[in-house]
Amino acid sequence: MTATIPGTTLTGEMLIAGTAVRGNGQEVRAFDPAAGRPLEPVYQHGDSSHVDAACAAAADAFATYRASTSEQRAQFLETIAANIEAISETLIARTVAESGLPQARITGEVGRTTGQLRLFASVLREGSWNGARIDTAQPDRTPLPRPDLRQRFIPLGPVAVFSASNFPLAFSVAGGDTASALAAGCPVVVKGHDAHPGTSELVARAIADAVVSCGLPAGTFSLLFGSGPDLGIALVTDPRIKAVGFTGSRSGGTALVAAAAARPEPIPVYAEMSSINPVFLLDGALDTRGAELGTAFVASLTMGSGQFCTNPGLVIAVDSPGLTNFVAAASQALTKSPATPMLTPNIARSYASGVESLTKAAELISRGEPGTSETSCHAALFTTDAQSFLASEDLQAEVFGSSSLIVRCADADELRAVAQGIEGQLTATVHADDSDLEEAGKLLPLLELKAGRILFGGWPTGVEVCHAMVHGGPFPATSDSRTTSVGSLAIERYLRPVCYQDVPKSLLPSAVADGNPDHLWRRIDGALSQD
Amino acid sequence: MTATIPGTTLTGEMLIAGTAVRGNGQEVRAFDPAAGRPLEPVYQHGDSSHVDAACAAAADAFATYRASTSEQRAQFLETIAANIEAISETLIARTVAESGLPQARITGEVGRTTGQLRLFASVLREGSWNGARIDTAQPDRTPLPRPDLRQRFIPLGPVAVFSASNFPLAFSVAGGDTASALAAGCPVVVKGHDAHPGTSELVARAIADAVVSCGLPAGTFSLLFGSGPDLGIALVTDPRIKAVGFTGSRSGGTALVAAAAARPEPIPVYAEMSSINPVFLLDGALDTRGAELGTAFVASLTMGSGQFCTNPGLVIAVDSPGLTNFVAAASQALTKSPATPMLTPNIARSYASGVESLTKAAELISRGEPGTSETSCHAALFTTDAQSFLASEDLQAEVFGSSSLIVRCADADELRAVAQGIEGQLTATVHADDSDLEEAGKLLPLLELKAGRILFGGWPTGVEVCHAMVHGGPFPATSDSRTTSVGSLAIERYLRPVCYQDVPKSLLPSAVADGNPDHLWRRIDGALSQD
Repeated sequence: MTATIPGTTLTGEMLIAGTAVRGNGQEVRAFDPAAGRPLEPVYQHGDSSHVDAACAAAADAFATYRASTSEQRAQFLETIAANIEAISETLIARTVAESGLPQARITGEVGRTTGQLRLFASVLREGSWNGARIDTAQPDRTPLPRPDLRQRFIPLGPVAVFSASNFPLAFSVAGGDTASALAAGCPVVVKGHDAHPGTSELVARAIADAVVSCGLPAGTFSLLFGSGPDLGIALVTDPRIKAVGFTGSRSGGTALVAAAAARPEPIPVYAEMSSINPVFLLDGALDTRGAELGTAFVASLTMGSGQFCTNPGLVIAVDSPGLTNFVAAASQALTKSPATPMLTPNIARSYASGVESLTKAAELISRGEPGTSETSCHAALFTTDAQSFLASEDLQAEVFGSSSLIVRCADADELRAVAQGIEGQLTATVHADDSDLEEAGKLLPLLELKAGRILFGGWPTGVEVCHAMVHGGPFPATSDSRTTSVGSLAIERYLRPVCYQDVPKSLLPSAVADGNPDHLWRRIDGALSQD
Repeated sequence: MTATIPGTTLTGEMLIAGTAVRGNGQEVRAFDPAAGRPLEPVYQHGDSSHVDAACAAAADAFATYRASTSEQRAQFLETIAANIEAISETLIARTVAESGLPQARITGEVGRTTGQLRLFASVLREGSWNGARIDTAQPDRTPLPRPDLRQRFIPLGPVAVFSASNFPLAFSVAGGDTASALAAGCPVVVKGHDAHPGTSELVARAIADAVVSCGLPAGTFSLLFGSGPDLGIALVTDPRIKAVGFTGSRSGGTALVAAAAARPEPIPVYAEMSSINPVFLLDGALDTRGAELGTAFVASLTMGSGQFCTNPGLVIAVDSPGLTNFVAAASQALTKSPATPMLTPNIARSYASGVESLTKAAELISRGEPGTSETSCHAALFTTDAQSFLASEDLQAEVFGSSSLIVRCADADELRAVAQGIEGQLTATVHADDSDLEEAGKLLPLLELKAGRILFGGWPTGVEVCHAMVHGGPFPATSDSRTTSVGSLAIERYLRPVCYQDVPKSLLPSAVADGNPDHLWRRIDGALSQD
């Protein structure tokens, strides 16, 4: 059951605290959607005994791992990145085979994944994540003296990470959730996605090798495979797990949120779930470049078979000749869009069923070229009017894949009513010319309450990994709008503050020690300084 | 039904968006626990129609209120503080009568409440709460240009605040939850506590007056009265409420958490609930000053009839002559402690029942002077051994009032086992001499995982309102350990980040505008600056 790939070997095993362990449950094979055939080796799902072993190791590792320095964890993340780069040729070949995604896209995703790990290394070295604050003692204050009070953030504990299907690298085993949790000082137990077990194994070995070479405890990282309802729920309800990162469907995310809330000790769940990413086309922009926007829209809609969390699934505009031009150009471009493979046959079936529902509820404008395989994504574009849209929950449901709905509004008031009527989103996009700025100014405050990221003049696909990014937003886009799953702010998800009152100097953590040995930005009596 | 008090008048009404409204449900009178008699006027519980009116007004107010400047909100908070000071004589008299707490304590609590409001005014002016970040555009980057990305925090929306019984001012209508939510830009709907309706009405009027004089929308603030299971749940499940602050019992807090989690759109609940605040007495400290510590312990235990979230309900030490001295001194001091009134007859009954349970599960050491009224707190001190403590969930339950349990350990290993075995706490206290520092160093990392605040050499009662304070901690101390309900960090509870990508300069919020017009600390391409 072992397939040899140049440079590395897939064994079909899970990796628990550095030890390869074969599952004992359902057999799983990756599927090459482009070639239409299953891939070796065979993987097997684990069960609650594997969850127990991984969580016990993570809990054991936590005390040591969280006591590592920022510099040690930065080097660990950089070692993971280097290990991934060292196997990139093998990795890219396997990931392309497992996902059906183009090689250029996967090559870019390797860079994004390693870049993300290095971003968190820089965050660790910069040090603001410590949230260091010192309120100096006032022994002579009346009526009562003020004690010496110091605050810093510490990691929550072991974190469970659920891989996404659509980003086999950047939102998977060594993706953003894992990188931010490891940066925070939390051991990580990943549930890999069945769609890309080989990719998961390769990356898990890259992490486990880094654990060893950096001298960290083996339980710092584990990879499990298993079913969501069984192994997934066992993982989230294990008392040693203190937080959860998840990227996937609304039903999967809300099930984990409910399981975490029902624990004797509830824990935070950061689930990135469902978003249809409304795109508002304002009058001036449509008037001057309706056709151009229509063509660009279809390029964003069909990229990666539409399998992006930020795929533009909703377009809103006031009826006008410009909108007619947009629709005509989009329709023409879509008709010529070749069918591309989706990640798995299941995802393709789910897409087809979503499109079928929309066909009943809205008016079909056009479809892409039909495909011939069971994973083909047969792109679809629909339209409806604003009143029908606002009256129907079904029309707001995410269809994962290249499907979008154009909502025609009677006027700007109705367009704003649609903005107010939509659910929480990852992104909201506005196309506006200078003549649209007044209307855009009215729209912006509405969109702030609906989306984590508001963008002008572009398309929502493409999420920059940086400091100012928010890949998040109000429910159901995520289960917790107070944070982001992409970008450096994500480290805060896995931290909590602790206050040290009159703690002896020799026992104070270096982040809040006298003399600022870690050279951190600290808030001293309310004022930021780096002294 | 109107009682006239010099300088102000109590009408017995709720205050919905600036309008006085009489409830239509159960009648409620405050009770003077010192005098043992009910107080006029009569209040009445509201129902879901009042929740609806308050939430509709709050939602209406939100767009305007959140668009106010930091300076406007700072002045609003300062106006509330000034209004409270203007009625302080009347207010203190009423609060003392309603709570049975000493005048000096309530006078101090007025100062703490106004100080808290002014702290958040300073936080608003300092501006770091905006979380401003800018990643500059890189138009020439390959393979893809980087857009202009900017991040700031915005308020979540209307917030429901549940007043505590034990701090009629500082954790009540204009307490820390209200101050931090208003500072964040969130309208607030308070459910007042039935134990101090007059205090609540007076403070609510002080806030409503400030709303008017600051020219803010009336729905920015409302005060309701009602039952937790009815009006409380209606408030938490109203779709316009976007977050909840609560201080109270574990059962009350977990009920709100469950209700919020079951909403179609789940929302965060910051419930500060249950803590027994372990105090670790290390060998050297006990040896040199066991008796002194015992006397000081009883002063902390009996302060305010033990009705503090941070009351020292658990003492842990290795058996030794020093511990014997501690117990003897504590016992002697307790025996002479006069019975003081508790806040309400219900709270006193609940205390008595908790003490009765402990009497069955642990060994009684001594009690304070018995009281004669139905609200008297008859202080109690128990002891048990570490193994019995670790085996019993009952012995870890909070008894709200002057009751504490001394856990005798065989050795330092057992003491650390107790530290590991306890639930999450608001505070953990260590008394250590220089000879104890090695042991204290082993204990500290264990306590970091259990408590929001670790203090050496003092007693946990007394929570400083400042920047470095953490009044929070792992469950069940709170429902969300990632934050604090006291201190300036609390503003972050009611905020979420939004990213602005390529947004036209004329539409950018000033916090992230070019030229830094608000003079904020901002993170530019990852580096903090105030340029």
